[in-house]
Amino acid sequence: MRASVTCALAAALAFAAVAPQVLAEAAPAALRGTGDLGIVVERAAGRIEIVETTGRTRVGEVGGLGDLSHASAVFSRDGRYAFVFGRDGGLSKVDLLTQTLVGRVVQAGNSIGGAISEDGALIAVANYEPGGVRVFNAGDLSPVADIPAETGEPAARSKVVGLVDAPGRRFVFSLYDAGEIWIADFADPARPKVTKIPDAGKLPYDGVVTSDGRFYVAGLFGEDALALVDLWEQPAATRKILAGYRKGEQQLPVYKMPHLEGWASVGDLLFLPAVGRHEILVVSRADWREADRIAVHGQPVFAVARPDGRQVWVNFAHPDNDVVQVIDVPSRKIVRELRPGKAVLHMEFTPRGDQVWVSVRDEDRVDVFDPETFERIASLPADKPSGIFFTARATRIGQ
Amino acid sequence: MRASVTCALAAALAFAAVAPQVLAEAAPAALRGTGDLGIVVERAAGRIEIVETTGRTRVGEVGGLGDLSHASAVFSRDGRYAFVFGRDGGLSKVDLLTQTLVGRVVQAGNSIGGAISEDGALIAVANYEPGGVRVFNAGDLSPVADIPAETGEPAARSKVVGLVDAPGRRFVFSLYDAGEIWIADFADPARPKVTKIPDAGKLPYDGVVTSDGRFYVAGLFGEDALALVDLWEQPAATRKILAGYRKGEQQLPVYKMPHLEGWASVGDLLFLPAVGRHEILVVSRADWREADRIAVHGQPVFAVARPDGRQVWVNFAHPDNDVVQVIDVPSRKIVRELRPGKAVLHMEFTPRGDQVWVSVRDEDRVDVFDPETFERIASLPADKPSGIFFTARATRIGQ
Repeated sequence: MRASVTCALAAALAFAAVAPQVLAEAAPAALRGTGDLGIVVERAAGRIEIVETTGRTRVGEVGGLGDLSHASAVFSRDGRYAFVFGRDGGLSKVDLLTQTLVGRVVQAGNSIGGAISEDGALIAVANYEPGGVRVFNAGDLSPVADIPAETGEPAARSKVVGLVDAPGRRFVFSLYDAGEIWIADFADPARPKVTKIPDAGKLPYDGVVTSDGRFYVAGLFGEDALALVDLWEQPAATRKILAGYRKGEQQLPVYKMPHLEGWASVGDLLFLPAVGRHEILVVSRADWREADRIAVHGQPVFAVARPDGRQVWVNFAHPDNDVVQVIDVPSRKIVRELRPGKAVLHMEFTPRGDQVWVSVRDEDRVDVFDPETFERIASLPADKPSGIFFTARATRIGQ
Repeated sequence: MRASVTCALAAALAFAAVAPQVLAEAAPAALRGTGDLGIVVERAAGRIEIVETTGRTRVGEVGGLGDLSHASAVFSRDGRYAFVFGRDGGLSKVDLLTQTLVGRVVQAGNSIGGAISEDGALIAVANYEPGGVRVFNAGDLSPVADIPAETGEPAARSKVVGLVDAPGRRFVFSLYDAGEIWIADFADPARPKVTKIPDAGKLPYDGVVTSDGRFYVAGLFGEDALALVDLWEQPAATRKILAGYRKGEQQLPVYKMPHLEGWASVGDLLFLPAVGRHEILVVSRADWREADRIAVHGQPVFAVARPDGRQVWVNFAHPDNDVVQVIDVPSRKIVRELRPGKAVLHMEFTPRGDQVWVSVRDEDRVDVFDPETFERIASLPADKPSGIFFTARATRIGQ
């Protein structure tokens, strides 16, 4: 089943009142490349640190970004600007070169992440309240389109989660309450075409797209399975995969839902944190079946592949969140356990894998490791750091 | 069989006389990100154009780069500098922001490409004359190491081809005359450790590494097969794959050896130009056997995958070099034939696949296509353009 909806200019005008604020003009700054830059979210302070990975230093900070709980970021195609998605509905545009907040819109009451279109022209934000997706011009943050997540009769709005970009100027996202997956095609930005896939599964809580942009997978809170969409297929459809993967003797309370964004893709395999279990699932992309399970230290949160796919680094939910384990992919064995400190929240590799940056919230530190030797090669002070995002994400599908 | 050689400071000093020339100081230039920059080689003029892919314009040019036949380029980790490898042994460092040549060494008499180490600190160049690899500091182009490609008794030097970077600060390359593949490990740059694999195959003429940095494959001129090294294996060894793939009724004179750099990697499959045949070979990475052959318009030169792996674009040797064919990967059928003009030499995709840039040498143009609609969306004048290289390569293994 599918349907199409056009929701263009009229909808956009409805929230045009939320005009972008240009908060600072570009000031003179040192000429530098942007390929080795990144940001570290300082959640409690509503601020980001700007860092660089060549000398492994902090180069500046930008504040005034609002509530940065669960904040994430994407980057402009030139690597100069970070678009930071806050929990409070704030979308902030930061110039990494001048270290200024150049635009900010509070575009909803409560939101959860966003994405940038393939061509870098559009920023989409997933909103809980009001449930839907709003799309902005990446240049001046002016509104382009509004897609209310309305379903049913009488119509009710659903929280939107798992918003990602896909090739062909598309955004894909899940409707938590309605259990649908929608694909919004912005080939013509003034007239987005929305394909709706009903009955995708009960309570999708997050979604991810494979690094080639082909497969969208939503985790389901209300069912013991995952929902899969092959975006190459026409017409678009979902099917359930890994049904029953949470069954078993060792059902534990779930301390933190694992991030699907943290799925590690290695050749034909995906390594994913099992919900509520001390395990990493290994899934084959060829048939979408479980190929293996790897026992780990606690309830995994992120499983992140080294760019060459030789290792997968895993962090854990409370009370095991002081540990990072490293899986050797060929042998599928834990080859190293690190204890960087209390509350390891995120890990980000440099694009060619010579470094991995680890945020250690309760120690107010970001540690940098050499993934070959496991040595800590740098440590930077940071105020309760959470997410770490490097500009190399701008070169990736589903960044 | 393997052996290790240490060739550190002493060797480096032997060519320290070739000091880097700093040809220009950074001049004031506009602040901008570097993620959307690239270069177009203007072979005959010894010059590069600097281009940007957001507005699809030419932003400047830098000359004085010597003989740029078969020139290629890699980029610094911050995306600011291009390192251009000329045929005349020249290694040129260009600042894309100030549009100046900031360093140049003529480090050999005749060379064929180079690579940048995983951490961005080292530039390696493959030399025909004198046969070997020379390694330079990416900052000031000062010499770091010299690895003469000497084998046999009495020792003879071999031309070096197919030089690539691999994870763990390694470079891998092939000795054309000696038929060996060497792996140089620069974990300690002052004391590189070279692992030599003898009897790799007769006359390796080019080499490529898969995008995860795991498999190195050398094309063989003297045998009807390819040589494969699994870089995850210890000790390193080679084996022959695709033996007999050139046999058949339709043996044609080879007008131009296909570039292995142009192998398209799509999921578990590789699409590669067949030498001397009007075919693209499809090879499975699972068993390194031929999975299919796709008939094409002429002798293929480059087969380049769209970043999402949905399409493979192919150009051809003379006299068919006015054509580009597009293969649809799921159906393995030609879905489009373009005729941009005479002498299509190279194709480069933007990193997320919204554009493909095509150099049309004899028409003095670079054309930009939308790979979704196949429309030509821009056209830039260029003086006999050949290679096109975007800074996003800095984020890739085996760039």
